[in-house]
Amino acid sequence: MSNIIRVGVLGFGGLGQAAARVLAPKSEMILVAAADKKGYVYNPEGLDPNTCITTYNSQGSVGHVKHGGVLSNDSIADLIENSNVDGFFLALPNLPNTFMADVTRQFVKSGWKGVLVDALKRTSAMEQIFTLRDDVKDAGITYMTGCGATPGLLTAAASVAAQSYAEIHSVKITFGVGIANWEAYRATIREDIAHMPAFDVEKARAMTDAEVEALLDETNGIISLENMEHADDVMLEMAGICSRDQVTVGGIVDTRNPKKPLSTNVQVTGRTFEGKLSTHTFTLGDETSMAANVCGPAFGYLKTGVWLQKQGLSGIFTAAEMMPRFVR
Amino acid sequence: MSNIIRVGVLGFGGLGQAAARVLAPKSEMILVAAADKKGYVYNPEGLDPNTCITTYNSQGSVGHVKHGGVLSNDSIADLIENSNVDGFFLALPNLPNTFMADVTRQFVKSGWKGVLVDALKRTSAMEQIFTLRDDVKDAGITYMTGCGATPGLLTAAASVAAQSYAEIHSVKITFGVGIANWEAYRATIREDIAHMPAFDVEKARAMTDAEVEALLDETNGIISLENMEHADDVMLEMAGICSRDQVTVGGIVDTRNPKKPLSTNVQVTGRTFEGKLSTHTFTLGDETSMAANVCGPAFGYLKTGVWLQKQGLSGIFTAAEMMPRFVR
Repeated sequence: MSNIIRVGVLGFGGLGQAAARVLAPKSEMILVAAADKKGYVYNPEGLDPNTCITTYNSQGSVGHVKHGGVLSNDSIADLIENSNVDGFFLALPNLPNTFMADVTRQFVKSGWKGVLVDALKRTSAMEQIFTLRDDVKDAGITYMTGCGATPGLLTAAASVAAQSYAEIHSVKITFGVGIANWEAYRATIREDIAHMPAFDVEKARAMTDAEVEALLDETNGIISLENMEHADDVMLEMAGICSRDQVTVGGIVDTRNPKKPLSTNVQVTGRTFEGKLSTHTFTLGDETSMAANVCGPAFGYLKTGVWLQKQGLSGIFTAAEMMPRFVR
Repeated sequence: MSNIIRVGVLGFGGLGQAAARVLAPKSEMILVAAADKKGYVYNPEGLDPNTCITTYNSQGSVGHVKHGGVLSNDSIADLIENSNVDGFFLALPNLPNTFMADVTRQFVKSGWKGVLVDALKRTSAMEQIFTLRDDVKDAGITYMTGCGATPGLLTAAASVAAQSYAEIHSVKITFGVGIANWEAYRATIREDIAHMPAFDVEKARAMTDAEVEALLDETNGIISLENMEHADDVMLEMAGICSRDQVTVGGIVDTRNPKKPLSTNVQVTGRTFEGKLSTHTFTLGDETSMAANVCGPAFGYLKTGVWLQKQGLSGIFTAAEMMPRFVR
């Protein structure tokens, strides 16, 4: 049992629930902890994802789970104190931009040592994380940031693709997302709406479900996004690949159809040492869901983080500079 | 100057020469050493690639270069002893299969500590390298293997792509190579011929240039390859992504046309946690040459190797488990 990585998931909305399902068949990782706003559940023998999901959806918190559930108004701090976890996936909303950094400060303050992984999207939220660089390193925490789909999977692919070129001219990420029922991804959809013209983070966050519904009625369920604030830009800049203004992220979200409106891809354009201009393209299969493309990489980077911890390397690392490791 | 990585290139055929050209504009790396069968050249102030290439092509060895050139029948051992190099790119022929491992033994024996990077292609040659795992680690050498195009760039892309899936069904690499004049890549072309039906390593190696020419006349300059023995298979197996028999490598080499006969790509097919079958595809731009796709990643991995060395991590690592770092 000692080599099995004990995992916790913070946040139990659509992403946290998908994360629990992704972990279920793994032999190298076991889900032992989960927390939401109102409580947490911890069981060193492992959690049953279906029980957690049913309980959360029917009673509003995993704190109601019979074995190991605890209701708490300070669920994250209480879970850190009362659990033995190697790594946490922070499946928390990006908003407000300081939220993930605040949670990280809780970990630093607690004296906990282990691996944290986020799937942060916004540049400004990731910059909040970077301000904690020294604190995280000194605390002995290995923090993997930007480890979802984009940033994450596509940023890593862009880092690999860049290798053929002497100079990078542009990195263009275009994503297609199809979801049958946006209600399962309330926080994520509001983050997407915040990127739309005439919206911002506060405005999107304040919307009621009925208002979101009315907006989506106007657009036939489509959210079309250009020049999004995505942390791929700062990650690729920090990796020395290009400047952040050479990175663009856009996409189309269809909130009424599980079929993707276009194939998600990243195009890396550059000049080779011989002076040739060319473009490498990494394209995701349409059948892969947002949940698969976010949670898979997140746990892949969690495994990398555990390896880094074993080597004594703490601090903040991004998906652009580390290879995710496959979790069986 | 102290942060600039001092690089040596062993082997000065087509690949070694391209490596010298790739390095020329870099600010983070400087080429200070090169060796071929008959000699070496070392200059801590940096080597001029054109001088080295012209000298090699006209006089048969970089040992004839005026400043720093030395003729030697034991050029690698002599260069190791008489130089100060952070990392060597082993741009040596893959054949015979034990050659790269023999060179590695020389480094181990010499007491040299630093980074070695190869662009090995054959599984059996890489398995020779793996037998040296403990020796390399104990010697304090950080050895990055399989760090060219395939294996290398495409293997790394496959590792990233695998993250979306709970289970990998196949990794299929198909390459297209176009070269205007095969004479510049004599060793590489013989390695390709060795993969053809009715040929093997010894037979291909023993061919005269005229015999290669005659063979290529028969096929109109096309070398078509299926189920090649490529080390991507063992690298992906070691990374726990799939078993080696799920990895296939094939391609078409046009020895008379710089235009690629097809776009080089890797397709990773798997099943997501929800049970969906899908395929991610990473496709290289046609305008990128073999030299750009091999040398770029090789130096990216050399930079990663230097980082690993600084962290005190020696041993053998593959392109499937480490992210290459972009070299400015």
